[in-house]
Formats: sequence, C-alpha cells, structure tokens
Amino acid sequence: MRDYGFGIDLGGTTCKLGLFEVSGKLLEKWEIPTNKEDNGSHILADIAQALKDKMEERGLTVEQIQGAGIGVPGAVTPDGWVNKCVNLGWNDKMPIEAELSKLCGFPVKAANDANIAALGEAWMGAGKGAQSLVMITLGTGIGGGIIINGQILTGSNGAGGEIGHIHVDDTEEEVCGCGNKGCIEQYASATGIVRMAKRFLARDDRDSSLRSIENFTAKDVFDAAKAGDEVADAIVTEVCGRLGSMVAKVVNVLNPEMVLLGGGVSKAGQIIIDKMRPAFKAEAFHACKDTKVNLAVLGNDAGIYGGVGLLLN
Amino acid sequence: MRDYGFGIDLGGTTCKLGLFEVSGKLLEKWEIPTNKEDNGSHILADIAQALKDKMEERGLTVEQIQGAGIGVPGAVTPDGWVNKCVNLGWNDKMPIEAELSKLCGFPVKAANDANIAALGEAWMGAGKGAQSLVMITLGTGIGGGIIINGQILTGSNGAGGEIGHIHVDDTEEEVCGCGNKGCIEQYASATGIVRMAKRFLARDDRDSSLRSIENFTAKDVFDAAKAGDEVADAIVTEVCGRLGSMVAKVVNVLNPEMVLLGGGVSKAGQIIIDKMRPAFKAEAFHACKDTKVNLAVLGNDAGIYGGVGLLLN
Repeated sequence: MRDYGFGIDLGGTTCKLGLFEVSGKLLEKWEIPTNKEDNGSHILADIAQALKDKMEERGLTVEQIQGAGIGVPGAVTPDGWVNKCVNLGWNDKMPIEAELSKLCGFPVKAANDANIAALGEAWMGAGKGAQSLVMITLGTGIGGGIIINGQILTGSNGAGGEIGHIHVDDTEEEVCGCGNKGCIEQYASATGIVRMAKRFLARDDRDSSLRSIENFTAKDVFDAAKAGDEVADAIVTEVCGRLGSMVAKVVNVLNPEMVLLGGGVSKAGQIIIDKMRPAFKAEAFHACKDTKVNLAVLGNDAGIYGGVGLLLN
Repeated sequence: MRDYGFGIDLGGTTCKLGLFEVSGKLLEKWEIPTNKEDNGSHILADIAQALKDKMEERGLTVEQIQGAGIGVPGAVTPDGWVNKCVNLGWNDKMPIEAELSKLCGFPVKAANDANIAALGEAWMGAGKGAQSLVMITLGTGIGGGIIINGQILTGSNGAGGEIGHIHVDDTEEEVCGCGNKGCIEQYASATGIVRMAKRFLARDDRDSSLRSIENFTAKDVFDAAKAGDEVADAIVTEVCGRLGSMVAKVVNVLNPEMVLLGGGVSKAGQIIIDKMRPAFKAEAFHACKDTKVNLAVLGNDAGIYGGVGLLLN
C-alpha cells in the first residue's frame, strides 16, 4: 500500500522536508541546507539522499511511497521543467520532476512555491474544504497562489497569481523589483511597509515610538500600532487600506470562496484583516463583499503540505 | 449519431438561436422575441417550440441532437439553476437546465451570458485553440468572462469575471450601477465613455466636433478621434488608458494566453487596442507584458457558439 508521501519546500537557503500519511497527517518534518555550489547541481541528489535516509530510518520501502511533491521558487511548466531559477543557482532549464523521480524511484510533481503553499492551505489549512481560494503571502515581497476547483491556477507561462505586482498607485516614482512602478508589493510587503512608514514619518510631525527605533521593521510598525501609537496606527491603516483595495480587485476577477493572508507580515494577526476590511468592502462587487478573508494557519509548513496535496491532486 | 447541437443566447428582448454541427459549424441562426409576460413563464416553452419547429423543418430527430447550451443574463449555479433574473421576469429560482431539457427531450446546459460568450470566442472565435483567455465585453456596461483550462471560471457564487466593477478611481463621486464608486464600467463602457467625454469637454476650452452633436455616443467619440479631432483623441486616450490599466490588473492575476475585447464599443476597432497598450505595458508584470490583446470576432454570435461549446465541454 502506498500510504506515505513526501512534501518538499525548496528554498534558496534551506529545503524543508515532510513525511506524511496520504490522509494528510504530518508524521515528521526536518530541513537540509540548499547547496547552491556548482550551479545548484547537488540539490536534487541531496534531497533524494535525505528522503532515502528517512525511509531507511523508518523502515519504509519504495512500494510504500506514493511519491513526492516539491515547491520551487520559480515558474514550473506543465510538463515539469523549471525555467532557470537563479535563487537555486540553476541557470538552465531543469527537468525537475523527471530528474528527482529518477533519483528517488517514485513519482515526483513540482510547482511554484507560492502556488503550492496555497494548495497546502486549501488541502489541510485555513482553506480546508474550499474548492477555490486566493492565498496572499506577505513577506519580503508579496506572492500569491490561486486555487480554482481544487487545482492550482498556473497561468499560461507560470505567472498565475503574481498579484504582488498589481498596480495600485499612479504617482509612485520609485521602481519596484519587477521594473514597474506602483505595485502593491511596494506598499504592503514587509519592506514596503517600512518604506511607507519612513515616508509617513518624514511628512508627519507627531511623536511616535518608531522614531526611536533605528532600523524598525514591519513588525515594529504593527507592534507600535497595537500599543496605541497614533502615527503607527495611521501607517497601518494606510498600508492595509491599499491591501484591501488590491484584494477587492483580485476577488472581483475570481470570486473565490475565501482569501487567506500568510507570510511573515501576517503574523501581526487580526489587525491586518480589521484594517483592510473597509477598503475591501468599498471596492468589492456586491456579490463578493462577504468573501471570507482569514489568516493562513500552516505557516512555514504550508509548502510541505502543498507538496503532498499536489501529489494527490 | 448525435451530430447537431443548439446554441441559445437568451436576452431580455430577443432570444438568439443557432443550429450547429457539433464540429462547430453554424448551419443556421434566427431569433425569437423574449416574452416576459406572466413573470417570464412562457420563455422556456417558446424556446422549446422554436427548436422543435426547426427540427421538423430540417427533418431532424431527437436522436440526432446532442443537446442545447443556453446563456442567460444572470448567475447560474453549478447544478443548473438561475437565481432570479429580473431581465427575464424571473423572480424566483428557475431550474433552467432540467426544465428546458424536459421540454426538449435532450440535455441542456446553462451558463451566464458573458461567460458563455467568452467560451464561444475560445471555441470558435478569436481565441480558437487557446486554453485560457479573458473576454471583456464593452457594451452599455462592462462584462467579463474567464476561460481557464478550456472551462468557464464561474466563481464561488457565479460572479467570476465581473471585471467591470474593478475599482480604478479613488476620487469618483458618482455612484456606479453596482452601488460602488470608481468602477472601470464608469469610464470605459459606452455610457462611461460618454460621461467622461462630457466631463472632459466641460473642463477643456478647445473646439471639438463633439460640441455640435447633441446626444453624442461612444461611437461618435471614437469617430471624431479617428477623424483627427484633438479633444476626442485626448478623451479616447484617457478612457483607453484606464481600460489598459484594468486589463493589466486582470492579467497579473490570471496570466491568460490572451485577452479579447468584444461588445458594441469594440467595434471602434484597433484604435482601442493601440490606445490601451501603453498603460497595459506599464502595469503588466514582466512575464505578462506580451499577453496578446485582440478584438473578438464572433460579435453577436459569440453566445450561440458558446452555448454549443458548453454542451461539448
């Protein structure tokens, strides 16, 4: 019986691994470093070895493994290739599914990491039971993953759900990492929030606890707002308002069952949802105004859950 | 052999009907009036009779008909019910698929009219061969239909693709038909273009041929722009710029193979695409900047094509 599966979340620094029952129960998770030397040519062998070691330790045979699902920080084609991935040192196309499958002896499926995290939340997280959802990952940047009919919306060239680069400001003069100007990522990501806060503090004379923190973070801004700092509250209101406006646009396109907010910034908690709701309500189409917006729950495990979800999908 | 299918586009005034070979060849199209009397209770019987008459005229038996697909101006649930449709006089839920199928003796599938028009273009129109596309219908209002993996994206409560109500202007003071303020429909629909043109003429002193047309239409605005009227050109640049900005947002969510522009306003032709492209390019994510944007080609027949497309889907 093929009762077990591996979920793999391959990042530029570490690779998270999870052993699951195919029912969705996480039995064990661990990490290995991502070795980017020699153009990342050791990465897949290292993963295969880690999985083999775990199977040996647990006395599992290849016949008991349904397969592995892996998320990578880049676009994955429908036939399982990664088109260049600088974060992993891969400068050429990599047939990741075929290659890792050959090394492991069981089937492997691959998908973009933001998409696979969305699938993880849809399968076993805050979206359990939902057939459609949008997951927005508020980290250093803003990533997104879209699930429709229980499946990842990959997009015609792997850019489905790249909602961090939705344009929200015509007056922006600084350039976003993507090359455009005025992307939501410039305002509501961790770096965007700090940028907005610095701008705000420069044009506002009021006292604020943020002025005494040399290199404050997005978390500092939320903490100050929660502690009653008026200026920080105004900053949070502004960035969350922009986020709510962006979420309304996405919801007006897709009409999903729910929207989930994940990533480091979302650890600020309910304040984000409360502060984004007015703009969301104002701009969502009437049939979508009651769309649930919740916090993701799987945290850093969303990717390994999604890997196994992909395998079973 | 079930070689034939009917496509039906049910509107509030007329109902368009088409007899097709299931290969996609349109054999004949005709119209009947939509009888909204008695809460629209005669509509489905009228359609069934029209189809039976056509079968008799052509000597077709029920065994030769694969079925019919019908588009309606409202949301259709996955199990084939229409939730109230004021444009048809239907004030209660209507089990349209079961009801019309019973009257006709062959299977019937139903979907929202904007969605089914998108499917028609994807199946036999400007999107032939595409697995994913967004069709934007620029008419009195702005409707939208999304095709992903060859299937309609219906949305969790039938509002998928309601892109006419994407918010694009924070400064708008007039209310859109949907109840919100600043929807793209207020700027780039036929009525929106006229509204914008009037605003523009009121704040601009330059002479314009539009000033001599008492109740000018969106077509008049485009015609004047094409004839070299500077003010009309500036108006078209502004409304198409807003449209391009909206299309970029939709494309950044979905990454479709192509975007199609249909509806009465799109009859203005290539000028719309040329004028929207700069804003689109500026705001589309880099992986999406080359997304094709084309004019739809099936015109008023998109719905009947889509009906048969739905049937075969």
